[in-house]
Amino acid sequence: MLSKNKIKFIHSLNRKKTRENEKLFLVEGNKLVLEAISSKLPLKLLVATPDFYELTELDCNLAEEVIECSAEELKKASMLQTPQQAMAVVHMPNNVLRINQLTNQLSIALDFIQDPGNLGTIIRMADWFGIEHLLCSTDTVDCYNPKVIQASMGAILRVNVHYIDLEEWLEKANQVQLPVYGTFLEGENIYQSSLSNKGILVMGNEGNGISPAITRKIEHKIHIPSFATNGDGSESLNVATATAICCSEFKRRSY
Amino acid sequence: MLSKNKIKFIHSLNRKKTRENEKLFLVEGNKLVLEAISSKLPLKLLVATPDFYELTELDCNLAEEVIECSAEELKKASMLQTPQQAMAVVHMPNNVLRINQLTNQLSIALDFIQDPGNLGTIIRMADWFGIEHLLCSTDTVDCYNPKVIQASMGAILRVNVHYIDLEEWLEKANQVQLPVYGTFLEGENIYQSSLSNKGILVMGNEGNGISPAITRKIEHKIHIPSFATNGDGSESLNVATATAICCSEFKRRSY
Repeated sequence: MLSKNKIKFIHSLNRKKTRENEKLFLVEGNKLVLEAISSKLPLKLLVATPDFYELTELDCNLAEEVIECSAEELKKASMLQTPQQAMAVVHMPNNVLRINQLTNQLSIALDFIQDPGNLGTIIRMADWFGIEHLLCSTDTVDCYNPKVIQASMGAILRVNVHYIDLEEWLEKANQVQLPVYGTFLEGENIYQSSLSNKGILVMGNEGNGISPAITRKIEHKIHIPSFATNGDGSESLNVATATAICCSEFKRRSY
Repeated sequence: MLSKNKIKFIHSLNRKKTRENEKLFLVEGNKLVLEAISSKLPLKLLVATPDFYELTELDCNLAEEVIECSAEELKKASMLQTPQQAMAVVHMPNNVLRINQLTNQLSIALDFIQDPGNLGTIIRMADWFGIEHLLCSTDTVDCYNPKVIQASMGAILRVNVHYIDLEEWLEKANQVQLPVYGTFLEGENIYQSSLSNKGILVMGNEGNGISPAITRKIEHKIHIPSFATNGDGSESLNVATATAICCSEFKRRSY
């Protein structure tokens, strides 16, 4: 049975402030909950219908608290329009970042990404491309926002997302000669650029691009050229789309 | 002044059935409305605040009907959470498709794309990559859905979107030896594939991929490889992300 207090507690995790204080976040839906159970992150609470427990082969007792409830009760606790059979409250990872973790690989940095769908899509894509670390400016949307988690399709459980002073960290990268890339209208054609398999790729805000303070730390300016022939095509790509194209370019060169 | 009847008419365009019967669709927001005014599509109605008319340098009288109204009135008619200063009702283009329009270029075909945000992002990306024709299965979400239009950022005014019997059209492509590509888990690594600059790239449904009937028409199976090192990364990419990566691969080879 799911008590009113538990439902209230689950609902409270929709607020960023509560999530930060409690260091907890919510995942919903069978697929994501199964991924949460098999991830490295400890589960504080698992709530599911009898069907879910019967069908899964995973050890649900790894959660600190396991509750069985009806579909009706689950629906009351759920934020999804089409609630499923399970939800889980997960402890946030304690992601400590050191510069030497970044020196041997490609990482992505986000400068003030506002849209939860964009951030979730970027996390999912980062996971696909084997990118371990995502550095976010402190004004980027919270990665534990329910919309981000849904759009990440579980990748939030694997990719390390760090909210940091981006200017400071890019300065550190500059100091250790780790290449810093960023997309700019006046940048070099990415398809003709030499790209390292180690470095930080900075992507900017949906409306305004990369901020002036961050721009000053970026040594390599790149650009995805438009192929529109009529000259009056789209002015820009969606930031998640652009990030995917850049990552594809960086990664394919390893073949 | 914006009459109650006009507001009712504008609201009615949120229904697909009405849009289809009237062959009209709605665009909202200053940027999109300015793009609509300067596009080739005729405007049935332009509604905007005095500020909008004062600031624009475009000829607003090209619209069949021009209404000036207050911000309050505009808000009542608007579907956006943060309404802006203008909206326009636009005549749908009469996109007749012939197979010989497709034989000299790369086109994209969508097999049952359901999410409006995904379709809008794909239209925007197609515009960027100079892709003129987007073929949609008849069960793909309507491209004049307000969420699609917003996500397309105006590209809907430029890219030709055709709702057609996809199986039949791919058969036509097969007959004229136009290469048909599609993404499959078992496909060839796209980075190592030979890709033509003419053909049709088929992308499948968010959950189920490309349907069996469509699969039979696809000669070239390709795949975006995962670079995840731990083996338990994301199972798939978002369909808009995957489309962007594929288009980038097709297009960059022209350099």
